[in-house]
Amino acid sequence: MPAYHAPLNEFRFLLREVLGLPLLSNLPAYASAGPDLIEAVLAEGAKICEQLLAPLNRVGDQQGCTRHADGSVTTPAGFKQAYKTFVEGGWPSLGCDPEYGGQGMPVVLALAINEMVSSSNMAFGMYPGLTHGVYEALHRHGSDELKRIYLPKLTSGEWTGTMNLTEPHCGTDLGLMRTRAEPQSDGSYIISGQKIFISAGEHDLAENIIHLVLAKIVGGPEGIKGVSLFVVPKFLVKPDGSLGARNGVSCGSIEEKMGIHGNATCVLNYDNAVGYLVGEEHKGMRAMFTMMNEARLGVGLQGLALSEVSYQNAAAYARERLQGRALTGPATPDKSADPLIVHPDIRRMLMNQKAFNESARAFYLWIAIQADILRSHVDAKQAEKADDMLALLTPVVKAYLTDQGFAHCVNAQQIYGGHGYIAEQGMEQFVRDARIAMIYEGANGVQALDLVGRKLGANGGRAVFAFFGEIDALLAECADDGAMTPFCAALKETRDRLEQATMWFLENGMKNPNHLAAGSTDYLHLFALAALAMMWTRIARAADAGLRAGTGDAGFYKAKLATGRYFIERVLPDSAAMLAKIKSGSDAMMALEAEAF
Amino acid sequence: MPAYHAPLNEFRFLLREVLGLPLLSNLPAYASAGPDLIEAVLAEGAKICEQLLAPLNRVGDQQGCTRHADGSVTTPAGFKQAYKTFVEGGWPSLGCDPEYGGQGMPVVLALAINEMVSSSNMAFGMYPGLTHGVYEALHRHGSDELKRIYLPKLTSGEWTGTMNLTEPHCGTDLGLMRTRAEPQSDGSYIISGQKIFISAGEHDLAENIIHLVLAKIVGGPEGIKGVSLFVVPKFLVKPDGSLGARNGVSCGSIEEKMGIHGNATCVLNYDNAVGYLVGEEHKGMRAMFTMMNEARLGVGLQGLALSEVSYQNAAAYARERLQGRALTGPATPDKSADPLIVHPDIRRMLMNQKAFNESARAFYLWIAIQADILRSHVDAKQAEKADDMLALLTPVVKAYLTDQGFAHCVNAQQIYGGHGYIAEQGMEQFVRDARIAMIYEGANGVQALDLVGRKLGANGGRAVFAFFGEIDALLAECADDGAMTPFCAALKETRDRLEQATMWFLENGMKNPNHLAAGSTDYLHLFALAALAMMWTRIARAADAGLRAGTGDAGFYKAKLATGRYFIERVLPDSAAMLAKIKSGSDAMMALEAEAF
Repeated sequence: MPAYHAPLNEFRFLLREVLGLPLLSNLPAYASAGPDLIEAVLAEGAKICEQLLAPLNRVGDQQGCTRHADGSVTTPAGFKQAYKTFVEGGWPSLGCDPEYGGQGMPVVLALAINEMVSSSNMAFGMYPGLTHGVYEALHRHGSDELKRIYLPKLTSGEWTGTMNLTEPHCGTDLGLMRTRAEPQSDGSYIISGQKIFISAGEHDLAENIIHLVLAKIVGGPEGIKGVSLFVVPKFLVKPDGSLGARNGVSCGSIEEKMGIHGNATCVLNYDNAVGYLVGEEHKGMRAMFTMMNEARLGVGLQGLALSEVSYQNAAAYARERLQGRALTGPATPDKSADPLIVHPDIRRMLMNQKAFNESARAFYLWIAIQADILRSHVDAKQAEKADDMLALLTPVVKAYLTDQGFAHCVNAQQIYGGHGYIAEQGMEQFVRDARIAMIYEGANGVQALDLVGRKLGANGGRAVFAFFGEIDALLAECADDGAMTPFCAALKETRDRLEQATMWFLENGMKNPNHLAAGSTDYLHLFALAALAMMWTRIARAADAGLRAGTGDAGFYKAKLATGRYFIERVLPDSAAMLAKIKSGSDAMMALEAEAF
Repeated sequence: MPAYHAPLNEFRFLLREVLGLPLLSNLPAYASAGPDLIEAVLAEGAKICEQLLAPLNRVGDQQGCTRHADGSVTTPAGFKQAYKTFVEGGWPSLGCDPEYGGQGMPVVLALAINEMVSSSNMAFGMYPGLTHGVYEALHRHGSDELKRIYLPKLTSGEWTGTMNLTEPHCGTDLGLMRTRAEPQSDGSYIISGQKIFISAGEHDLAENIIHLVLAKIVGGPEGIKGVSLFVVPKFLVKPDGSLGARNGVSCGSIEEKMGIHGNATCVLNYDNAVGYLVGEEHKGMRAMFTMMNEARLGVGLQGLALSEVSYQNAAAYARERLQGRALTGPATPDKSADPLIVHPDIRRMLMNQKAFNESARAFYLWIAIQADILRSHVDAKQAEKADDMLALLTPVVKAYLTDQGFAHCVNAQQIYGGHGYIAEQGMEQFVRDARIAMIYEGANGVQALDLVGRKLGANGGRAVFAFFGEIDALLAECADDGAMTPFCAALKETRDRLEQATMWFLENGMKNPNHLAAGSTDYLHLFALAALAMMWTRIARAADAGLRAGTGDAGFYKAKLATGRYFIERVLPDSAAMLAKIKSGSDAMMALEAEAF
C-alpha cells in the first residue's frame, strides 16, 4: 500500500526562504501566525494525514459508499471515526472567522493543510473541503440570521456542506437549469428539482448537511439571469440551533464512477424542500462564484497533492526495485541488478514530477499569500493587486495543476511497470482519483475560456500586466547575479512568449472570438509555465543564497538548483510549441462541418 | 453505452488510394487477396465487431473473470458464446498458414481486423490476439512435431495461447528469472516456478490452453543467456491430437486490476509441469522476440483502437449535447443551447484525435504491407528493407500509438464532462483499458530504449537511413505539386529535426550512453511525428487527386485536407520542443543522488 510523508521541509523552505513569510509579519494575517506557529500546525496536520487519513485511502476506494433503502448513506469503514477525530482536532475551523468559532489562521496555512489532506485521502478531504466552500459563500453573502444559524457548525465541522449546480441536462450551461424555487409568505422558498453529481451529498459523518442549491425563482428572468442561491439543510434548524424535521431533500442514488469512491457522489432529489435565499434574488451566480473560486483553488491542489504522493511512492519503488543495469556500468555490482533509478527514462519521469511538484507548490502558496493580503486589506492598492492576481490565476491553478497532476500520476504508475496496473499497489487509484479534478468545478476547457475570455481583458488587462510586472521586477532584482543568469534567461524567454501570445489574442480575438478560444488551453498552459518559471527563479535564488550562507543543508539546496535546471531544459521548451499553436488560430480547427466528425 | 462503427470508409480510402494496394497485386501476398476481397472480409468482420463484441464490452468490465476454488476461471457472461461464434466464423485463422488450416490472408487484413476487434472489445480481443502470437512463435521456431500437434488447433482457435515471461521479481530484466526446466530422458522438460500477469492465463473459452513459458534449464548459463522457451499445454496432448491428462500448471489467482477486466490476468503456478523445448536450448529470447514483435504491433493497435472508439462516441456526444452558445453567435437559435461541437476547445480535442487516428491507421497499415512484402520475399533487397522498417518501427508503433491512444481516450472522456467520469457512459472504461497498453509487452520506456539502443545503430544505421530515404522520395515525388507545398514543407521540417536528433545521438551517445537514453522517449515521439507527417502527406496527395478526379465524395477528401492542415499547425510544433529536450542531454536528468528523490 502506498505511503505518504508530508513534505514539511518543502513547506518550511518555501514559506521562509522563497516566499519570505518572515518579512510579511506586518500583515495582519501573519501578525499572530508567524512561521513558527505555521510550521508547528503543519507538523501536527502531517501526523493526522500520515497516520489517520492515508491508511484509509485504499479502504475508501475498495468499499466505496453504500446507499440503503431508506436513502441513507454509509461511508467506508473508518471514515466516520476519522472525521470525528478530524473535527475534534479543530482542523475544519483553521482558516475560519473567530466570530463564528474559527481560528482565524492564514489562508496559506489552510491551503497547505488542504494539500496534505488531499495527498493522504482525497475522497475524505472532499467532505471538509466542500464544507469550507459553503462556509465561504455564506460568510460572504449570507444574511446575519443565516450566518448565526449555520456558520458555527460549518466552522466546527459538526455539519458539512455541499454545492448543487449540475442537473442531468446541464453542467457548464447553468442557464438551462430547471430546479424551481417558490417564494413562501414567511420569506422562505419551496425548492423542487433534481441535482446530480453532488459530492458528499449524503453520508453518515455529520448530523446535518447544508446544501447550497442553485434554483430559479418562479416568474423570474430567463436563463442564467434568473438563477438564485439557496441554503437547504437536510434537517431543518430551529431558532435555537437544534435540529428539527427532515427536509424534503433525499439521495436518489449514488453514482458508480471511475474513482474517489470514498466520497458519495449523489443524485439529490428536492421535493418541496424548504430553502432560504442567500444574497439577492436572481444573483445566485455571483454568490456561487465565491464558493467556486475557493473550490477551484482546492481542486488545483488536489492535482498537485496526488502528483506528490504518487511521486513519493514511485521514487521509493525506483530506489528499491532491482531491474537491469545502468548503461554506464553496474551501479550495484554486488546485487543481481541495479535499482530502476539508474535508468535515465525512469529519472525523466521522476524529474518531471519533482520539477512540477516543487514549483507548483510554491505557486499556490504564493497565491494563498495574495489571498491573505486581500483579506487583510492593509493597503487598498495592494489588496486590489492581490485580488487581481487571485482572479487571474485561479483558473491557471485549477486547470494546469490538475492536467499535469493527472499526467504525473500516470507516469508514477508507469514506473511500477505491470505492478502499477494492479489495484493492490494503489498507484492506479491515484490515476483514477486524479482524473476527476480535470473535470469538476468547471472542466479545464472552461477554465481556459475563463482565463482568455474574462480574466485577461478585465479592467483593461490590469491583472495580466501586473503579472508581467511581477516577473519583470524579479528579473530586475536578479539582473546582477551571475548565478541566476540561466534562470533569468529562461524566465525572460517564457515571459516573452506569453506576451507574444497575449498580443496575438489582442490583435485577433476581436476579429474572431474563436481565435481566442482555439488557443485558450495552450495559453493557459503557457501562462502556467511562465508562473512556474518565476517560481523556479525564486527557488533558485533562495537556494543559491542558502548555499552561500553555508548554514543549511547544502544537499537540499543543490538539489533545488539541479531540479530547476532540469525544468529549464526539459519542461520549458514546450512553451515555444504552445505559442506556435496559439498563433495558428482557429481556421483549421473550425474548418469541418459537424457531420464530418 | 458507447457504440462502435467500423471505419470501413477509412480502410477503403487508405488501402486503395493512399497505400496503393491495387498496385501491389504482383506481390504474392496480394495475388489472391486483392482490394475487393479484403474489403469484403473487412465488412464481414465489422458486423461481428459491432454487433457481437461491442455489446459485451461493458459486461466484461463489470463482471470481470471469476476464479473458482478448483482453480478454474469463468469469463464474463456472453464471452464463451461469442468466442465460439468467432471461431466458427474462421476469424482466428485469417492470417495463418494454409498448411495448418489457415486462410493465408495478408497481414494488412489481419491487422485491420485486429483494430476493429480491439475497438469493440479489447479484453475479448486479447484471447485470440495472444493465441496468434503463440502461433507465430511456434510456426517460426517450433519443431515439425510441435507444429503438427499445436498449430492446427491454434490456427482454428479451438485452443488458445499465452506468453509467460514475468515473475514477481522480474519483468523487463528477464535474466533474473527463477522458473526452472529439468531435462527428462524422453526429451521433454519438467517446469517449475511462478509466472505472473499472464493474460488469458486460464478461462472457459477453449478446451486447451497452450502456454509459452520462458525458463532456465538447470545447469545452463547465468542470466538472460540461459533462458529457453517451452510449450506447456494445460492438458497434455496425445500423439493423435486428443487431450490427455491435466498438466501441472494452475491458476493461483486472478489479479484485481485497473481495467481489461474481461481478460483473466493470472498468476500461473508451474508445479512439475511437462514442457517441450521450442527452438534451441538457451536461445529462448530469440524465439520469444518473434512473439513479442508480433504482439507489440498488436498492442500499438490497441492504443489506436481505443482512441478510435472513444473518438466516435465523443464526437457523437459533442454533436448532440446542448450546452452554451457559439462565441460567434447562436448556431441553433431555435434550441435552448448550441451543441458542444461549436466550441473551439471541444473541437481541439476532437481534431487532435481525428488527426491522430487517421494517420496512425495509415502508419500501421503501411507497416503491415512491409510485413506482407517480407513474408512474400519477392526480391531479397525489398524484403530486407521491409524487414528493416518492421524492426525499426515496431517500437514506435507500440509506444507512440499507446501513449497517444491513452491521451486521446482521456480527452474523449473530458468532452463528456462529469458524465465521462460515470461508469455507465463507458468512457472511463476506455481510459482504464487503454492504460495497460503503455505498460505490457515492454513498457513504453523500454520501447524507446529499444529504438535508440538497438534499432538505430543496427547494420550501420541502415534502417533509419532507409526511413529518411522513404521520406525524401515522397518529397521528390510531390516537389512540383503546388497543392502539396504546405504538407511537404511540414514534412521536411519534421524530417530535418529527426535527422538533427539522430546526428546528436551519433555524436554524443558514444561518449555517454545516458545521453541516448535520456532523449529516447522524446526521440521515439519525434520519430512518430515524422512518420505521421509522411502519412499525412500521402493522405493529402490522395485526397487532392480524388478531388481533382471529381469522382469520389468531395466532402470526404476536403475533410482529409483540413485535418491534415490541423495536424501541421497543431500537432507538429511539438517536434521542435522534442528536439530541444533531446539536445539537452542527460546531465540535469542524472544530476541528483538517488536519495535526493
